[in-house]
Amino acid sequence: MFDSGLGGLTVAHAIMRQLPSESLVYFGDTARVPYGPKSPDTVRRYSQEIATFLIEQGVKAIVIACNTATAHALPMLRQSLEVPVIGVVEPGARAAVRASRSGRIGVIATAGTIKSSAYVRAIEAESPDARITARACPLLVPLVEEGWIDHDATRAIAREYLAPFMHDEVDTLVLGCTHYPLLKSLIAEIVGPAVRLIDSAEETAADTRRMLTDQSLHAASSEAGRYRFIASDDQAQFLALGQRFFGDTIERVELRTFG
Amino acid sequence: MFDSGLGGLTVAHAIMRQLPSESLVYFGDTARVPYGPKSPDTVRRYSQEIATFLIEQGVKAIVIACNTATAHALPMLRQSLEVPVIGVVEPGARAAVRASRSGRIGVIATAGTIKSSAYVRAIEAESPDARITARACPLLVPLVEEGWIDHDATRAIAREYLAPFMHDEVDTLVLGCTHYPLLKSLIAEIVGPAVRLIDSAEETAADTRRMLTDQSLHAASSEAGRYRFIASDDQAQFLALGQRFFGDTIERVELRTFG
Repeated sequence: MFDSGLGGLTVAHAIMRQLPSESLVYFGDTARVPYGPKSPDTVRRYSQEIATFLIEQGVKAIVIACNTATAHALPMLRQSLEVPVIGVVEPGARAAVRASRSGRIGVIATAGTIKSSAYVRAIEAESPDARITARACPLLVPLVEEGWIDHDATRAIAREYLAPFMHDEVDTLVLGCTHYPLLKSLIAEIVGPAVRLIDSAEETAADTRRMLTDQSLHAASSEAGRYRFIASDDQAQFLALGQRFFGDTIERVELRTFG
Repeated sequence: MFDSGLGGLTVAHAIMRQLPSESLVYFGDTARVPYGPKSPDTVRRYSQEIATFLIEQGVKAIVIACNTATAHALPMLRQSLEVPVIGVVEPGARAAVRASRSGRIGVIATAGTIKSSAYVRAIEAESPDARITARACPLLVPLVEEGWIDHDATRAIAREYLAPFMHDEVDTLVLGCTHYPLLKSLIAEIVGPAVRLIDSAEETAADTRRMLTDQSLHAASSEAGRYRFIASDDQAQFLALGQRFFGDTIERVELRTFG
């Protein structure tokens, strides 16, 4: 699995819980984070480099645990790689359509994900009548990467980003960036209990389980999964923030640089 | 000259005004921005790649128009390159010491610049008795790169970052990141008229002029400088934000990728 940084660990955690026998290699591209404001070509180039590296590590499937990379690079990686590739956009869209009663669905994501229209297409593919409000929230990733997850400034910025969704009376809001689940309680406080928050981590893990079953790729259930964490920059910072958010699942971080 | 992104254009502008006959090649590493949270090794690697590229363009000197890159990479580049290399830290420190009456000097900068202690060393070299308060303000770069330069959230975040400087009664505050001059009026509003704000752009341009004179590298005064702008990602976004901040000095942007 890979992400631009730490956010994808939310997906890693769901996979560890749902698939305890599977081993994971997690790559966080912390030397080039964030992906959200960057162009599709640049994100595709980074994704291809990382996928090639993961294949060299002997992985049997790849999970793109980053919405921006999924939005820009999923079709390309599915075409260029011989292993199955799972993204986070389709699972999130499917969960949102299932959760919504009114069909008014909101999507918050990075600038790149929103511009790609990947969520709008994926939601409309499941439910052509859905009324979708989508908005980029570019500052939420830097706020999470700073660890400001319960801070007045974060609250003020989130309140401004979320106002249009209240106006459009969405009943379901997709957290369309793997960093956003770390802000879930702050977002819930702003939008109130009537709005369901969709975090694609659990749904992506479920998709991964189905894919492994369909392709007979499951690890033996007697095995216990082993985990490697690799970052492209400063292992110490990845370790500190990763442990803060996810506890001591992360014991050590390897370094692998590109370019 | 180079910077992690757009911020260094504040230095480019000062050089254009003070040295109108000199031609500039400006490189903004927008595919890997920001540098502030990244490790010294990574920032040195990026700086070396860019400097090598600039040398290939035939430059006669290099200005590191980025505080984080200056803090981490200036000594290395001075050693490895045969052309003169100017950074932004020493000029800013010198201007601060000259401006301060009380000797209480504040420095705001990225996490990387603060951790490096580059400003503290440079200020103490000029004035060993200076009392220095230094603090990282990591969210200001993303706020500027989003264009939120006069926004309540930016004001709230800046107010929190700046509180220790008010407490320590600094009379001079170094804007130790080339993005921060774009927030100058907002910062001035918070710290009040008694605090002098030091923007190293003008001082760096003056240093560049002196260096060109000392080394007899000046362009003929009959010439008019020509300007190239190069980014490592999405030229359109660089052009749009660059023109918003600096007008139509920037007519077109070239693309050069690394890695």
